Amino acid sequence: MNAVEARLTVVAGAYAGSLGEAARSTLTAGGKRVRPLLTLLCADRRAPIPGGVIHAAAATELLHMATLVHDDVLDRAELRRGRATVAHGFGVATAVSTGNYLLARAFAELAQTGDGAAVALLSRTAVGLSEGEVLQRNEAYDITLGSDAYRRRCERKTADLFAAACRLGALLSGLHHGDQDALSAYGRSLGLAFQVFDDILDLSGDEARTGKRRGTDVRAGTVTLPLIFALEAKPDLGPRLRAGGELDDAAVAAVIAGVRASGAIDRAREAALGSIAEARRVLATCSEGVELDLLEQVASSVVDRYA
Amino acid sequence: MNAVEARLTVVAGAYAGSLGEAARSTLTAGGKRVRPLLTLLCADRRAPIPGGVIHAAAATELLHMATLVHDDVLDRAELRRGRATVAHGFGVATAVSTGNYLLARAFAELAQTGDGAAVALLSRTAVGLSEGEVLQRNEAYDITLGSDAYRRRCERKTADLFAAACRLGALLSGLHHGDQDALSAYGRSLGLAFQVFDDILDLSGDEARTGKRRGTDVRAGTVTLPLIFALEAKPDLGPRLRAGGELDDAAVAAVIAGVRASGAIDRAREAALGSIAEARRVLATCSEGVELDLLEQVASSVVDRYA
Repeated sequence: MNAVEARLTVVAGAYAGSLGEAARSTLTAGGKRVRPLLTLLCADRRAPIPGGVIHAAAATELLHMATLVHDDVLDRAELRRGRATVAHGFGVATAVSTGNYLLARAFAELAQTGDGAAVALLSRTAVGLSEGEVLQRNEAYDITLGSDAYRRRCERKTADLFAAACRLGALLSGLHHGDQDALSAYGRSLGLAFQVFDDILDLSGDEARTGKRRGTDVRAGTVTLPLIFALEAKPDLGPRLRAGGELDDAAVAAVIAGVRASGAIDRAREAALGSIAEARRVLATCSEGVELDLLEQVASSVVDRYA
Repeated sequence: MNAVEARLTVVAGAYAGSLGEAARSTLTAGGKRVRPLLTLLCADRRAPIPGGVIHAAAATELLHMATLVHDDVLDRAELRRGRATVAHGFGVATAVSTGNYLLARAFAELAQTGDGAAVALLSRTAVGLSEGEVLQRNEAYDITLGSDAYRRRCERKTADLFAAACRLGALLSGLHHGDQDALSAYGRSLGLAFQVFDDILDLSGDEARTGKRRGTDVRAGTVTLPLIFALEAKPDLGPRLRAGGELDDAAVAAVIAGVRASGAIDRAREAALGSIAEARRVLATCSEGVELDLLEQVASSVVDRYA
């Protein structure tokens, strides 16, 4: 991870002016670095990690950061990890450019591997990310949304990048196709669980710990799994969500209380734990080149983060 | 070019919903397709055009389109080629996502060549494009800007993508390094001329023909070469530009009249013609694999477009 951080520092330090400052502020804001960690841990454990895997790990984080910066523009978010977002601190224009810069740097980083399949995978994933953003906005306030549509959106928005992060590590360290496919499936299930837990935290998390304002999804009309389950149990929540326009703080608090009283949080939690179990199951099919113990630990840490 | 259009149609047709619609509206809005044309014309003329060159040609146009869509967000532009911009017609959120989609698709397209050097070149160019956007905004209303700073910005914003478009055609069709470098230099000089002519048209063009509102640069405080020359000849123009905040229509018209009266348009035109001459000069150093006649014609057409 030190080598990955070093790459990110190079990228952040490459420019003077507001672009460099905004990129540095984004890259140094902490963040869990889950995606690059997965890339490294999915490399063949029987040999030193190749340089290409380091570049790929940095690329997954850069792509992730690019989407965060752009998401904050579109959501008009003011805080991210307890700090001002680029959009809020530097303005929309710099935020759009910073997102583009990070996206382009992700490909510049990956291109250094010289591996066409790796670039093809990450670019397909980036296409899906932009599709996921649009899905999320088009599906806002749509209380008829089912869990299948939710899953599709989460794959585009989150899980496919987890899957790609894992596959890149396997691919660029020369693990065979069976392991590549298994690790990609592991990453996808882990990513789904990660997103569901994230959506639960938006309803029940501690703001001081998450660094995000509670109820952001409710306010934006983003229909998440706990909300879908709550609407199944208590259809009268629907009209409150669609009251039209932005909900005020009292209305958001009322929706959150309704969701929590419906038992939907527990049901969503079970769905996430099911994805974690699926991630573990597929790990068991991997060959001896795969770092099973540490990947198991990552799966546990996704659960612990929520607990 | 038919094969390139077919690739762009595939990209535009890949999604339903507002993302697909916005992408289609962008890709079908006409456009001169100068960049993909350069890629094709820079391929080795002694053999059929390889598939990789077609993909690269489509990629250069997709990257260009991505920057247009994002630029229109940042400039709050309402019209592009006589049509509503994505930002104006579909909203900022869809425009940011559409730009990201086109950018990601550019790399997906180029990744199909399997050529790491090609991807590295385009991603470096994309990094420069985002830097160019920020430079343009940071340098707005800076009347001390000289022609060197202007040139640096034009390289990032325009000329480097022209250079990359040319080099990709040469590289992916197997022309030797000397030709690759010469064609890249040809593209850079052509791109600089293209940008200078574009900047002149903003001051003296026919709105019905350009599809853009005249004086857009003046209104945004973008200090272009004709303006730099005008400020050298008539320093009293400076305070008018920096009047603070958005200039009204009468103030813009007064600045335009001042620039035209200063002789700066002719001087900028001579600089652009100098770049065209430089592009022609470097063509003469190329080997017999290079499509000299048609590349000469492209250089002439850049001049004709302005005339």
